[in-house]
Amino acid sequence: MLEKRIRIAKGEIKASLVLKNCQILNVFTEEIIKADIAIEDGIIAAIGEYDGIEEVDINNNFVSPGLIDSHIHLESTMATPFELSKISVPRGTTTVICDPHEIANVCGLDGINYILKASENAPMNVFVMLPSCVPATPFENSGAVLGVEELKKLIDNEQVLGLGELMDYVGVINADKNILDKIKIAENKNKDGHCPNVSGKELNAYIAAGITTDHECSTEKEMLERLRLGMYVQIREGSAAKNLAALIKSVTRQNLSRIVFCTDDRHPEEIFEYGHIDNNVRTAIKHGIEPLMAIKMATINAAQCYGLKNIGAVAPNYKADILIIDNLENFKIKEVYKDGKKVSEGSTPLFENKNPYTDEKVLNTVRFGKIEEKDIQIKMSSKLAYTIEILPHNLVTKKSLCNAEIENGYFKFTENSDILKIAVIERHKNTGNIGIALIKGFGLKNGAIASTIAHDSHNLIVVGDNDRDILLAIEQLRNTGGITVCINGEVKETLPLPIGGIISDKPIEYIKQKLDSMKEIAYQNGVSKETDPFMTLSFMALPVIPSLKITDKGLFDVDNFEFVDLCIE
Amino acid sequence: MLEKRIRIAKGEIKASLVLKNCQILNVFTEEIIKADIAIEDGIIAAIGEYDGIEEVDINNNFVSPGLIDSHIHLESTMATPFELSKISVPRGTTTVICDPHEIANVCGLDGINYILKASENAPMNVFVMLPSCVPATPFENSGAVLGVEELKKLIDNEQVLGLGELMDYVGVINADKNILDKIKIAENKNKDGHCPNVSGKELNAYIAAGITTDHECSTEKEMLERLRLGMYVQIREGSAAKNLAALIKSVTRQNLSRIVFCTDDRHPEEIFEYGHIDNNVRTAIKHGIEPLMAIKMATINAAQCYGLKNIGAVAPNYKADILIIDNLENFKIKEVYKDGKKVSEGSTPLFENKNPYTDEKVLNTVRFGKIEEKDIQIKMSSKLAYTIEILPHNLVTKKSLCNAEIENGYFKFTENSDILKIAVIERHKNTGNIGIALIKGFGLKNGAIASTIAHDSHNLIVVGDNDRDILLAIEQLRNTGGITVCINGEVKETLPLPIGGIISDKPIEYIKQKLDSMKEIAYQNGVSKETDPFMTLSFMALPVIPSLKITDKGLFDVDNFEFVDLCIE
Repeated sequence: MLEKRIRIAKGEIKASLVLKNCQILNVFTEEIIKADIAIEDGIIAAIGEYDGIEEVDINNNFVSPGLIDSHIHLESTMATPFELSKISVPRGTTTVICDPHEIANVCGLDGINYILKASENAPMNVFVMLPSCVPATPFENSGAVLGVEELKKLIDNEQVLGLGELMDYVGVINADKNILDKIKIAENKNKDGHCPNVSGKELNAYIAAGITTDHECSTEKEMLERLRLGMYVQIREGSAAKNLAALIKSVTRQNLSRIVFCTDDRHPEEIFEYGHIDNNVRTAIKHGIEPLMAIKMATINAAQCYGLKNIGAVAPNYKADILIIDNLENFKIKEVYKDGKKVSEGSTPLFENKNPYTDEKVLNTVRFGKIEEKDIQIKMSSKLAYTIEILPHNLVTKKSLCNAEIENGYFKFTENSDILKIAVIERHKNTGNIGIALIKGFGLKNGAIASTIAHDSHNLIVVGDNDRDILLAIEQLRNTGGITVCINGEVKETLPLPIGGIISDKPIEYIKQKLDSMKEIAYQNGVSKETDPFMTLSFMALPVIPSLKITDKGLFDVDNFEFVDLCIE
Repeated sequence: MLEKRIRIAKGEIKASLVLKNCQILNVFTEEIIKADIAIEDGIIAAIGEYDGIEEVDINNNFVSPGLIDSHIHLESTMATPFELSKISVPRGTTTVICDPHEIANVCGLDGINYILKASENAPMNVFVMLPSCVPATPFENSGAVLGVEELKKLIDNEQVLGLGELMDYVGVINADKNILDKIKIAENKNKDGHCPNVSGKELNAYIAAGITTDHECSTEKEMLERLRLGMYVQIREGSAAKNLAALIKSVTRQNLSRIVFCTDDRHPEEIFEYGHIDNNVRTAIKHGIEPLMAIKMATINAAQCYGLKNIGAVAPNYKADILIIDNLENFKIKEVYKDGKKVSEGSTPLFENKNPYTDEKVLNTVRFGKIEEKDIQIKMSSKLAYTIEILPHNLVTKKSLCNAEIENGYFKFTENSDILKIAVIERHKNTGNIGIALIKGFGLKNGAIASTIAHDSHNLIVVGDNDRDILLAIEQLRNTGGITVCINGEVKETLPLPIGGIISDKPIEYIKQKLDSMKEIAYQNGVSKETDPFMTLSFMALPVIPSLKITDKGLFDVDNFEFVDLCIE
């Protein structure tokens, strides 16, 4: 194969495919080079004037290397890697470096192995950073624990590039033995960071541990401090967090090579509508960045950051992951070639999944015992109770108080009140753990919404204004998990998520349509349009985002980092 | 250790050493940052305001990362790695990526292992690229053959970064099986190039083989073509070849990250006088390159090219290889810290070699049988004979003709003629091979000069205008090898080179003084000052540089790539 490519490059034999008349966006010199691209075995053999057995006239359209998402949790798309590739690849993202943190919290190594295996039939380069914080906190029960011994089993896998985001930055900065032991097994590999608001001596400590990237910058000050100390900054444009507008003005020719793009979390409907990393590129260009600088951040810079030697450029010996673009300003992708094969035209994928990968080990993970009305009652010692208050467009909640109605010592729903019940049911090991609290600002009327996506442990979380719908919604998610909306005693719509209770086995178009439809039902039944009901619900159990959260172990005061009783006195 | 550095960075405990009040040349952002540098275990723990157990006030001098020579044949300094470090480290070069091609041609794997081991006591990071072309050509006898099986034994050594310069570019471009097999064992490692004047489809073929660097560019056109096709260009400023002036004007901010510095071959007297990679930096600045851009080429760019993660910057978790500089324009290095220890002041090293490394396997390598007057006679079939003509300041020779005097069918020296004898004696395996020819333009009178440095096979080469001195010079180099000058039947001066016949075991000052003194004797005895006698001699047996050369197998016409008879008809 190597020999054949050399002979093709030399002009002795024809390449299987030649893309004629390209205007190649050269990421090494920031020039536009007119040339043909000779391709063999999915690899670029040569750039110049070449003849092919098959020739495709590119008509002087621009040609870019495929784009790289340097940090994504694939699970946030709720789709399998293959299904994600159906929308991301036509939009130019041909490589993702993913941290399968969510499925690892449910299924441990089996979950990571599922991602590795399921990626094989997607026309996308999928690399993995091993989740470093499973479980994410000691304040909830997850489905798995990934310790040093578990991580060692996969660290040398060739798809594994290192250790995923060290969210436990407090542990790193405090040099906790447990976390340092994990860092040490990835000594010669990349170690991704996650350190919002960390600066000064604490940031130095974090970097001294060997961590080389951060995707949590949201201000110019944070970005420059990280760059100066040698970190790569991953400018994030995701679904929950969008940092590009704030950071892009600090990109200079002098620091360009240390800046890359990522999405972190990206919901399918946003990829459909705005794109994947092409959205980062387009937005950067709109903010005045030269197109070739934007493309470097989306390609060769990320490849260099992660030591990927044959990805990120259109040049001999690089993978033939190639985008055809008709206009640099709007960065509209006409066609995509992956490994030298045309895989999309416009937004339409030209490939299908003939052999979907399934693995029993990641199915039927939603396990809990019988749950009856008595199990979801809230014993009240006083009327004055802590309440999780949802703030519009925000994952941070407010720790507020309410005057609850009490009947026979238990909380009682009252009509026209905005106080709902929220419960988290441990669903991995059937411990019977249930945490219940009060929530305000969700707005739902005459119903309940339940989901087995609940960061980071992905227990079953349910919210509702009556016990009948709450119980119905819970029951609906037994075994397969998913998201469900029940109104007036009726299951209105359910999106099953059989893979770990967090990923659908259905086409991504189906997932999008179900989510749209369920969201519409939620809005028709009182949920404010200021709130994405499923995303909001999925963060109510995450005890690292302020201020008040609920886990299967109880109500958690994030500001004081302790469990609290519901009632005052 | 990691834990300690984290705690130092956090400010909990003091670092062993803090360099206070630095103006750090930041290669990530091209800024100058005022800060202290906290160092522990030879590694930078933190940058900021720090206190140390020991504190050194840097008085707002500039602080640069140590410089990297991205491609050097250490043997051309004729010094051990330790002795080289005595002059290179005080001049700022703290890392060398070397291709021990010369000693490998003499001693094979034993030679490479010697370099790896002998480097350990030098305060310099020494990395190795495995010589890919041993022997360099089939037209001479070398001391060793390095095939795939031999290279496999060292490719995974952690000091080994890949496969050294693929000088046999014709073999690569022709996809010769032997050379491709070598390339394949370095699949995931770097593969260095050497492809002067190669362009177009042939250059594509060379790069398609996976080769990612070239240090043989001498024109802007060559440089740009290589950069566009994805090669790193190593701008060379060596002793034989100086390319910086021609190439530096093509360095732009757009292509900067793909350009690095090297010397390839650098003689000790030039390092003493002009410097090592600091000379590249200084010369680049003189040519108008911004100091921080020049320093990037000399540091972080080279580290990235070779995947060296903790070298090339002054930042947490990088090696504390640090230069103190008082002036950016003349890049004068005041002090050097290596692994956090001060190792030089001005040009004076502050370290010594307490335990020099020796290895029997690389000693006494100069082996040949008894050589008598009859063995060095040239049988002449006609007066008209090919003559190697030396051109001033050039390694290329001219294929000229002379009218030689003949006595009894043999060449006869004539007084006041510039025609000398040149002989190459196989000295590795005592085959008895002797190649003899005529040479013009060397200028030596009443004497002979012999050397066991003769690229690339390092047989014994001798030139002289009388047989007595030629025999004396040859005999002088038995067993240990070296360089010798004999005049009027007397050994005037000899530099023994006991390590492989190419490296001295003496201090580098001694080497320099001997070379100076021997060169002076050569000049006093007729050698033109336009010619470096020892360097010239060392290239006369290299059958890949045009036009006419002599090996132990005979007279070689490089232009036609064939052996030729001495006499015409």
